[in-house]
Amino acid sequence: MSASPATKPIEFFFDFSSPYGYLASTQIEAIAAKHDRQVAWRPILLGAIFKVSGAGPLTEAPLKGAYSRRDMERSARLRQIPYAWPAVFPFSTVAACRAFSVVEETDPAAAVALAKALYHAALGVGGDIAAPEAVLAIARAIGLDTDSLAAGMQDPRIKQRVKEINDAAIGREIFGSPFFIVDGEPFWGADRLEQVDRWLATGGW
Amino acid sequence: MSASPATKPIEFFFDFSSPYGYLASTQIEAIAAKHDRQVAWRPILLGAIFKVSGAGPLTEAPLKGAYSRRDMERSARLRQIPYAWPAVFPFSTVAACRAFSVVEETDPAAAVALAKALYHAALGVGGDIAAPEAVLAIARAIGLDTDSLAAGMQDPRIKQRVKEINDAAIGREIFGSPFFIVDGEPFWGADRLEQVDRWLATGGW
Repeated sequence: MSASPATKPIEFFFDFSSPYGYLASTQIEAIAAKHDRQVAWRPILLGAIFKVSGAGPLTEAPLKGAYSRRDMERSARLRQIPYAWPAVFPFSTVAACRAFSVVEETDPAAAVALAKALYHAALGVGGDIAAPEAVLAIARAIGLDTDSLAAGMQDPRIKQRVKEINDAAIGREIFGSPFFIVDGEPFWGADRLEQVDRWLATGGW
Repeated sequence: MSASPATKPIEFFFDFSSPYGYLASTQIEAIAAKHDRQVAWRPILLGAIFKVSGAGPLTEAPLKGAYSRRDMERSARLRQIPYAWPAVFPFSTVAACRAFSVVEETDPAAAVALAKALYHAALGVGGDIAAPEAVLAIARAIGLDTDSLAAGMQDPRIKQRVKEINDAAIGREIFGSPFFIVDGEPFWGADRLEQVDRWLATGGW
């Protein structure tokens, strides 16, 4: 029961601590909808990926760090996307990833709603979403059952699943956030959304 | 005799071995012309800058390397820019930088013509421009006096000047290629050309 190429979802990989991932998260669904496509939201853990790639958080890189913060803010302003820095940045996204996985098992649409709420809380208004309790509070605010969610986030099976999803992403050479796979074609960066849009319209060039 | 802000040139920093710098070099003058601006071409030596930033050539990075080559080719195809990989990549750009500096002292427009010819030879058709002899052959092909150019490229004053230009760029936190300064605002990457265009049109946002 595999989807035909024309109905395959756009895979959208992102880390909850990634500003460019956040910016892309506010744009990708409109682009997909233009082309009658769905988006498969795939949170990843960049920290683990950086151990393989040897890269690190852009905002902490010599010379690039200050520029990148300026660019993130400027890119958000240009598209009128609310943007604020959390006090601690980058922050742990393990709890957010686990929560997403728990919710996704029974309600994929709710998992996407949770992802958007988490991104907004962290980078839209600069809140702290690192702790499981913070993630649960956000889940509660959008009406999710947080008792089962809290239990699921502690479940060794979910912990293992999050790790396996991340390892699988590394195996597919997903190395950054945001990262898109469109009908087999990889695109890295919020600044490739225009190419994603065009690829969907034309089938490639 | 400083230029007024509205007539200040767009500073365009680039390394001759930078694919995204090459792509930008084919676009920046049309963008500048739309806004009645000039472009100040500023070749830099990314190798020396990487020693400070700790970064390295994107095409050689784990995971990112293969993607970046694909992205460079795909971005060139999208804009119908001729593109080919030199057999040796990345390559030394010291001779190219020195030649640019020599020509620029007496004829800035000819230096820009040389920069375009060097980029085209290297990344448009995949030639080798690392050696001084290769740079001189390209200079000769566009009608430059290569006797004085060859002498200038050996002049300790020029060697020192190229180094000083690079150090000054590092001092201004120029860390990549292409890099643009537009009325004091920094933009990094060929994928920021749209923002450069908009900044010139609006004066910022």
